[in-house]
Amino acid sequence: MPFRMTEMVGCEFPLFAFSHCRDVVAAVSRAGGFGVVGAVSSTPEQLEQELSWIDDHVEGKPYGVDVLIPEVQAVKMDITADQIIAQIPEKYRDFTRAILREAGISEEGANLHGGSQRPNTSLGQELLEVSFNHPVRLIANALGTAPPEMIEAGKEHGIPVAALVGAKEHAMKQIKAGVDIIVAQGGEGGGHCGEVSTVVLIPEVLDAIAEAGADIPVLAAGGIMDGRQMAGMMAMGADGAWCGSVWLATSEAETTEVFREKMIAATSRDTVRSKHRTGKYSRQLRSEWHRKWEEAEIPALPMPLMMLLSEPTLRAIDQASLNGNRAAQELATYFVGQGVGMVREQRGAGQVVQDFKEDFAASYERMMGLLE
Amino acid sequence: MPFRMTEMVGCEFPLFAFSHCRDVVAAVSRAGGFGVVGAVSSTPEQLEQELSWIDDHVEGKPYGVDVLIPEVQAVKMDITADQIIAQIPEKYRDFTRAILREAGISEEGANLHGGSQRPNTSLGQELLEVSFNHPVRLIANALGTAPPEMIEAGKEHGIPVAALVGAKEHAMKQIKAGVDIIVAQGGEGGGHCGEVSTVVLIPEVLDAIAEAGADIPVLAAGGIMDGRQMAGMMAMGADGAWCGSVWLATSEAETTEVFREKMIAATSRDTVRSKHRTGKYSRQLRSEWHRKWEEAEIPALPMPLMMLLSEPTLRAIDQASLNGNRAAQELATYFVGQGVGMVREQRGAGQVVQDFKEDFAASYERMMGLLE
Repeated sequence: MPFRMTEMVGCEFPLFAFSHCRDVVAAVSRAGGFGVVGAVSSTPEQLEQELSWIDDHVEGKPYGVDVLIPEVQAVKMDITADQIIAQIPEKYRDFTRAILREAGISEEGANLHGGSQRPNTSLGQELLEVSFNHPVRLIANALGTAPPEMIEAGKEHGIPVAALVGAKEHAMKQIKAGVDIIVAQGGEGGGHCGEVSTVVLIPEVLDAIAEAGADIPVLAAGGIMDGRQMAGMMAMGADGAWCGSVWLATSEAETTEVFREKMIAATSRDTVRSKHRTGKYSRQLRSEWHRKWEEAEIPALPMPLMMLLSEPTLRAIDQASLNGNRAAQELATYFVGQGVGMVREQRGAGQVVQDFKEDFAASYERMMGLLE
Repeated sequence: MPFRMTEMVGCEFPLFAFSHCRDVVAAVSRAGGFGVVGAVSSTPEQLEQELSWIDDHVEGKPYGVDVLIPEVQAVKMDITADQIIAQIPEKYRDFTRAILREAGISEEGANLHGGSQRPNTSLGQELLEVSFNHPVRLIANALGTAPPEMIEAGKEHGIPVAALVGAKEHAMKQIKAGVDIIVAQGGEGGGHCGEVSTVVLIPEVLDAIAEAGADIPVLAAGGIMDGRQMAGMMAMGADGAWCGSVWLATSEAETTEVFREKMIAATSRDTVRSKHRTGKYSRQLRSEWHRKWEEAEIPALPMPLMMLLSEPTLRAIDQASLNGNRAAQELATYFVGQGVGMVREQRGAGQVVQDFKEDFAASYERMMGLLE
């Protein structure tokens, strides 16, 4: 099939997999899709290791890097990690400790002084430099408008730059900024998201691009879990699909066995769009974690403070959940979209790509039938 | 095109138009779509008049009736209109009066003792009988599981019965109830809606039907404003599209000129899913009406009480808005989905159907291109 994305980034099938797990990225690209590794809060050294591993396992297939930088404000403010962490009110540390204590989880695991998630205050440019030393075919910026230095670096290396948007107005900014690909993610998607649903956002973004006289491909994101939905989005005019949640239930995923089982058990009504993880609205699997913050009526801290507090805590909760701690299993949560209701089983990431291809082809055949 | 719905209800193009406006219903059916007139709070006499008018203006084309009965609880409780209206707390009447007074709107227009929207406590069966005396090709039940008497009446007259659902679990109940068509409406849609988005709900409902071993067509609803989206939904497996909001901006619509202008000005982020109109969650254009109830932190009354209070009040507000009352124009609101962001202009309902057909055909041609 002559897909536009094939020429642009070299993949056989325009199914993009955003994942923090290098195994998923390599498996998806090997299967004909396009893996994009999330370098969130990686150090340049960690990213160098990740990309080298991918190079060794991707069999020459194309892949990309997402240099999502949630601490971007901190970077702009140019303050140190300790200065940021010092801004977390004691009240919030105490409430977090209480959640752990109540669940019988040791505080040791959860370094409430920032832990491993220290914001790297000179990250963006270094991560880009590391990325360009590898055969990446796409650079993505998942939060906010792509910075000029990223656009320039992409042009300089001949690598397309993609940016995520959750509203037509944001797409218009990205078009002005000069991005090469727009990932339009509906509010039903996992992670940071807006309110506009995928089925409305895609045509809105396509129209905004046309009205700007631009020629920028759009990848549809938000709730897409199979090839039927991908075919639907492409029938609307998208050039491919960008998925995150579907990979979290794969056997290669970085998620815990406990969370993958929760995904299989969840319905599409079991997610919540909450600020109580990163400080910005992001869709997650609803759990006791959200109920406790809501019951206590404690508003979320701004990003990155809320994240610096919650991430190490939730990692300790994940660890305890794996050790059979029931309370921890009820608290366990992660970023996931409404599509979680469509997860039936754990599959290999390569198998997911294969299933997408088959469902996609079947959808096309059904449509052909309508034209007979 | 051999559409399944063509055989089932006789329309040329499977675009279903839900409207309270008989002009829209007739225009859509004449243009090759399928108009469905909403008989909400009609008396049997009013419905008889509406259907006779449609028979005279539809040029023999097929149409349907939606006997949505928001007061269904009242019907079940078998209590009188006055008994229901008497349950509205004085505090709520006072707050509503204050909103009107502040906006300089006479209370006369707004009969806060129930006004014209008195629940008809023996409605359902009579409306069905009236409908079957006309050449209707579809009976729809837009809220809750289709009652057995409706299913039986449909079978008896050989008329398919459709039911709206906003969640997979509700679809499973409708399948058991024996409905002939399921309208799956995502949470981005206008009016009463759930939380699950259209792009996730459609495959969930299709899978629920397949797992039940049933063979029931699905109409996709929620955010669908043009033929690209319709093509996308059908690529996913839907048998057609069911739209409501797009007709509210047509020149034939029952909406006020003021509201149609607000629709054209609105973005897809200007809607709200609120209980402050009918007592159940429904998506509406966000206005001062919602802000005032939220600011006062007064929770919505249950259905039908909230509706009995708000509908006459909002009609008085609409009237004042047409007379140039600025405050009334800011308060004016109506049921509408996120697709409102895609409304650019007022069009005739027949033109909307024509535009759907052209965009739908263009989407198919683009898809053909992918297969070359």
